[in-house]
Amino acid sequence: MENNGSKMWNFQGNGELKSAPATTVRGTLTMIMQNLNKHDQRPTIPLGHGDPSVFPCFRTSIAAEDAIVDSVRSGKYNGYSPFVGVLPARRAIADYLSQDLPYNLSLDDVHLTNGCIQAIEVVLTALALSSPGANILLPRPGFPFYETRAACSNLEVRHYDLLPEKGWEVDFEALEEVADENTVAMVIINPGNPCGNVYTSQHMKKIAETARKLGILVIADEVYGHLTFASTPFMPMGTFGSIVPVLTLGSISKRWIVPGWRLGWIVTCDPNGTLKNSGIIESVTDCLCVTSGPPNFIQAAIPQIIENTKEDFFLKIVEILRGTADICFDRLNEIPCITCPSKPEGSMFVMVKLNLSLLDDISDDVDFSLKLAKEESVIVLPGVTVGLKNWLRITFACDHSTLEDGLGRIKAFSQRHAKKT
Amino acid sequence: MENNGSKMWNFQGNGELKSAPATTVRGTLTMIMQNLNKHDQRPTIPLGHGDPSVFPCFRTSIAAEDAIVDSVRSGKYNGYSPFVGVLPARRAIADYLSQDLPYNLSLDDVHLTNGCIQAIEVVLTALALSSPGANILLPRPGFPFYETRAACSNLEVRHYDLLPEKGWEVDFEALEEVADENTVAMVIINPGNPCGNVYTSQHMKKIAETARKLGILVIADEVYGHLTFASTPFMPMGTFGSIVPVLTLGSISKRWIVPGWRLGWIVTCDPNGTLKNSGIIESVTDCLCVTSGPPNFIQAAIPQIIENTKEDFFLKIVEILRGTADICFDRLNEIPCITCPSKPEGSMFVMVKLNLSLLDDISDDVDFSLKLAKEESVIVLPGVTVGLKNWLRITFACDHSTLEDGLGRIKAFSQRHAKKT
Ligand SMILES: Cc1ncc(COP(=O)(O)O)c(C=O)c1O
Ligand SMILES: Cc1ncc(COP(=O)(O)O)c(C=O)c1O
Repeated sequence: MENNGSKMWNFQGNGELKSAPATTVRGTLTMIMQNLNKHDQRPTIPLGHGDPSVFPCFRTSIAAEDAIVDSVRSGKYNGYSPFVGVLPARRAIADYLSQDLPYNLSLDDVHLTNGCIQAIEVVLTALALSSPGANILLPRPGFPFYETRAACSNLEVRHYDLLPEKGWEVDFEALEEVADENTVAMVIINPGNPCGNVYTSQHMKKIAETARKLGILVIADEVYGHLTFASTPFMPMGTFGSIVPVLTLGSISKRWIVPGWRLGWIVTCDPNGTLKNSGIIESVTDCLCVTSGPPNFIQAAIPQIIENTKEDFFLKIVEILRGTADICFDRLNEIPCITCPSKPEGSMFVMVKLNLSLLDDISDDVDFSLKLAKEESVIVLPGVTVGLKNWLRITFACDHSTLEDGLGRIKAFSQRHAKKT
Repeated sequence: MENNGSKMWNFQGNGELKSAPATTVRGTLTMIMQNLNKHDQRPTIPLGHGDPSVFPCFRTSIAAEDAIVDSVRSGKYNGYSPFVGVLPARRAIADYLSQDLPYNLSLDDVHLTNGCIQAIEVVLTALALSSPGANILLPRPGFPFYETRAACSNLEVRHYDLLPEKGWEVDFEALEEVADENTVAMVIINPGNPCGNVYTSQHMKKIAETARKLGILVIADEVYGHLTFASTPFMPMGTFGSIVPVLTLGSISKRWIVPGWRLGWIVTCDPNGTLKNSGIIESVTDCLCVTSGPPNFIQAAIPQIIENTKEDFFLKIVEILRGTADICFDRLNEIPCITCPSKPEGSMFVMVKLNLSLLDDISDDVDFSLKLAKEESVIVLPGVTVGLKNWLRITFACDHSTLEDGLGRIKAFSQRHAKKT
């Protein structure tokens, strides 16, 4: 066969993924950062991220670093690991998560992944492969990576609303309305991103019962697990695994403040073995066999990371977040064009509503974020990225003074753009 | 909507991936290891793997371990990294690869991945997305992960033969025959897995010219780059990047003997910028944005790993492989039912042909491998896994005594099963 020249290096195709990056949180933040004013002498204040590791007060535990160093120095973990992860790490994660459950997980319930990101990727791919024509229910607002990965797998997505006036609880009426006979799973994110809410035990029980009634799985994204600092304690969705099977997704990224270490998990919380012959676990395993898992020496460090990180590290982190959540809520409440429906109780974020009628020359949340970046060198995430137009997601996982400075600048910006009446 | 009970936890679907693991090298090896005889007191001898890191003589360089330790201890790389990798690592890899090229790569040419496995995954996904209906040409024998990932992306695969009697060179006639107007790329693996061959400069030039004539990309899997120990030196395919654009895939897995560290790359070797507006690089980047990259602190260690690993480490590894390749070739030649078409010159493997007519009760290569595992506790890979039925792939990346022991057992096995004439 001779080349006719026409196909030479043309890979433009349908480009399904072309628009994907713009719909991710990091893609949007990158776009907004391009609007920063290089001539502003002040430091840029990042209130858009979910990664506080740059702040010295959020440095991970020395015990976690030690565990990695010991693992590398042993020379024992330079080789390939099993596809679903090394046994001691799977056992350590099973034990760690079992502490908060009314039953014990086994190591067979635990599959290791490259952070919670790959956990989401694998679970959605597995659902799409094992249930052609299926759809899943995602929260709005939510974490847009779910939408992105579902699109990659041609998995249909339907949204149910979270109710800001009810502490971002699930709107069950809306949920039951969008579910149909092809719905296979619903996703919940608790503690919440982007809302900073924490679900009560009663609410989670109701989620379990509703999912059971609908005959669907619950996918519980608990990547912010244990990062709670108000009256509602963190409770894993797996607590209700005997009502409905739960796939719990998590990682060490947030609690240990090491998102760059890329160690996460997919865990089946299914004490009745309801999923045993369903094909879903097999499908997850099959997906893990055709991709790359986390580095062996990081996996091997997991038992030590979990065992040797002392309670005071976790307490310190939660204490900082409690303080910054307070500052954030108080300062934002001083700004007329911003409404904070509830004080954040967990994770690292709060969702606030923009009242555009009080602003002069701001057309929407993206415009607000772009102009704020340009004029005040402060980065916030437009709500439209997470599903709510004309809201903003603001991170309080910073040190106190950075946060105060940033919120001060948001206030100044809002005053400057306030409608003169 | 009320659940009618029928869809409760049934995810059996079409299960496209169901059979995938069995067609991977590691899936097959796992299957064969299940046939080991637990009562054999002798150690199991692994001659099926591509990971010699368990042998003390193949321990990675101390400099590489130091680099990881320094990176973790700095506390600077706990956060998320950019999607395509951190700049210093991309620059270091560009410089490292440029040493063997007639032009300089820029850091923009380098995309970091979780080992060469994710490089393959991303490139094939990108091709499938950007060229619907496309097909790619894969070598036979080859590395079956290409077939597996192509199937995951619905990318059509066609095979061209490698010629054992010509040192496993490409059969250009067969190649041109299977290519058509929908062919977008051909894959070469050099140094070769499973064949242990190393292509000459002339042969690679001819590959480049043929690909150019066909109007297709060359995907050059150079994961065994620099692991050569005979008369033909390693030369990267990118050398001919001005004849045809090359996507080079590689990793630190094999040369540094750290497959568990999961650090690889996709590099565009395209000095004329032919691919600039083709969409393929954009498509690769888009794929990297919707998945998880390698850990930040491992990326950050790359400049030091490359710079501080001294030549004598590499020389030592190559020296060991030269010695074990010799032993392997000599011992196998003493076994009547096994034919070794050529002495391995690179990588860690040799492909040998079984003459079943000389054996009594062995039906094929899988049967040979299963019985060998059971009777002699030696693991080899059946050729059918890599595309050649009734061949075997044998690894010589072991220490001398283990290899001698293993080959002795293969000889004993073959004698025991020899046809009595
Ligand atoms: C809700 C949610 N899920 C998953 C992730 C990904 O976490 P990881 O860093 O473990 O991949 C994030 C990261 O921000 C997140 O906010
Ligand atoms: C030809 C070939 N390509 C790619 C890989 C994957 O390499 P990595 O460990 O860098 O993912 C292997 C591993 O054995 C291989 O043999």
